[in-house]
Amino acid sequence: MKYYAGIDLGGTNIASGIVDEQYRILGRGKLKTAVPRPAEELVADIAKTVRMAAEDAGIAFEQIEEVGMGLPGTADPIAGTLEYANNLFISDLPIRDMVQKELGLPVCIGNDASAAAVGEALAGAAKGYRDVIVVTLGTGIGGGMLLDGKLYEGFNYAAGEIGHMGVVVDGRPCTCGRRGCLETYCSATGLVTSTREAMERHPESVMWQLAGSLDQVSGRTAFDAMRRQDAAGTRVVEEYIRCLAYGIANVINICTPEVVVMGGGVSREGETLLEPLRRLTAREVYAKNPQRQTAIVCAQLGNDAGIIGAAFLREAMGLSREALGA
Amino acid sequence: MKYYAGIDLGGTNIASGIVDEQYRILGRGKLKTAVPRPAEELVADIAKTVRMAAEDAGIAFEQIEEVGMGLPGTADPIAGTLEYANNLFISDLPIRDMVQKELGLPVCIGNDASAAAVGEALAGAAKGYRDVIVVTLGTGIGGGMLLDGKLYEGFNYAAGEIGHMGVVVDGRPCTCGRRGCLETYCSATGLVTSTREAMERHPESVMWQLAGSLDQVSGRTAFDAMRRQDAAGTRVVEEYIRCLAYGIANVINICTPEVVVMGGGVSREGETLLEPLRRLTAREVYAKNPQRQTAIVCAQLGNDAGIIGAAFLREAMGLSREALGA
Repeated sequence: MKYYAGIDLGGTNIASGIVDEQYRILGRGKLKTAVPRPAEELVADIAKTVRMAAEDAGIAFEQIEEVGMGLPGTADPIAGTLEYANNLFISDLPIRDMVQKELGLPVCIGNDASAAAVGEALAGAAKGYRDVIVVTLGTGIGGGMLLDGKLYEGFNYAAGEIGHMGVVVDGRPCTCGRRGCLETYCSATGLVTSTREAMERHPESVMWQLAGSLDQVSGRTAFDAMRRQDAAGTRVVEEYIRCLAYGIANVINICTPEVVVMGGGVSREGETLLEPLRRLTAREVYAKNPQRQTAIVCAQLGNDAGIIGAAFLREAMGLSREALGA
Repeated sequence: MKYYAGIDLGGTNIASGIVDEQYRILGRGKLKTAVPRPAEELVADIAKTVRMAAEDAGIAFEQIEEVGMGLPGTADPIAGTLEYANNLFISDLPIRDMVQKELGLPVCIGNDASAAAVGEALAGAAKGYRDVIVVTLGTGIGGGMLLDGKLYEGFNYAAGEIGHMGVVVDGRPCTCGRRGCLETYCSATGLVTSTREAMERHPESVMWQLAGSLDQVSGRTAFDAMRRQDAAGTRVVEEYIRCLAYGIANVINICTPEVVVMGGGVSREGETLLEPLRRLTAREVYAKNPQRQTAIVCAQLGNDAGIIGAAFLREAMGLSREALGA
């Protein structure tokens, strides 16, 4: 049996896993991302989570064949550089070589949503599909694309930034510098912002009891309030899904994948999110042939998709270890 | 020498050409689209333009090898059906077989913007690029994509509908049923709407002299007014380009082609449009590596791109004549 390490570097957590050839996670390691902080500290903690995962899996660190890392931004796998990650406050960091040096193992880097797409395509909700888009609703919104079965990141490795598709010309400011990015409305962070805004307008809302205070609002607050028939919470959820459907319809009108897989924290709402999302998106999709509509499904692997996919990133990119300077 | 016929069916004109193997147009035929009207009449006029083009080229009609047709909507090249074209008021029309019967020649159908993309990639501004998006600013907005050198239309032939990417959640109503589609602001039609709105707010504007009346406003009116230092006209153009940049940045953030080719009537403004478009788009693009930015260029073939590309559509799709039932 061969063992691989997959690292999912998010805006909130560093999550690593030891993955076997059957895409099973055998052990895990996790630490807080805690950015902004010096890159050396972040890299040391990344390496630490891999050692934790090996220990948790009960394998010797030396048994790991290679390491893959999904990063929340634009990553050049050939140069090994994290070019830009708005949520990490990082740009132009030679993170591949830094982690490689720290671990003494070959490392491949890629976009985190690309990794999640690879994971869902290998072992999850997109198994068997050739044209796949995975949208992750987390701290930000990530997008990963497989076209004709291969990871598509574009000539500059920046493709699939679905979170930075603008849907409101003069909308909310985004950390990327634009206005009205889908991420500002439909990431978990965007949902929290909308929930807080609604709470301030509605002191009578049950959301105050559910959250305790504005500081403790989460991506679940409005959904939980809706389940208790709270009018303000219900409206927050409705507006959230309406905006998300608008963005997903855009992606379908441009790329028409066979399947859109919804992942990330907010997708844990399952059919509460998916059923109205499908209904609203179907209304807005340009292609009118009902036999050939893009399926919208829930991710099956949760956060594991990013770990499993990261472990097999190099393969999905069709790159040799030599191409990565390992 | 082999001869091919390419047909560009637009919302306004039916334009046909006889194209040789070196992508030269040797003769042309043109009639008004004049929709809505019965499909049989439209098809008869389409066939007529091909005969006009053969006569104009000085070749016998029998010398034409095959015919390609670019359609303003979703076209299934295998079934031969125009599934949906909002600007033609047509859906589910077996147009391939209708034209084939009328002409007695093998016909291939595809999306008109796909045809324009093929034309620009074969013989125009996108020559030598592998990942290409062509955006046509005409009656509507079309989008054609080549990825890794091949036409990409998606599993349902509806990919690249860039005009039906929403950029204002509650924006202008679109003929496709959505609101705030890029097409409603940035097609020639959208520009005319914005120009008329500005004229009604600004009776002092030179646009009234340039156009004569609201009925005679064209996509050039505001640009012409800007060239005469008219404040209202300048604002219309600025807002137009700002919205277009927002949409183009979206396309780049999702698909990151190596080049975006701007075609269609409004693109005849050339650098007056392109220079500010590049500047504004660059600010909004997520990828921050200045060495690998998507180029934004003007189409070189004008309306000929759609005719030339249509003539070679089947080849760009990688389909055999047999696959098309010819």
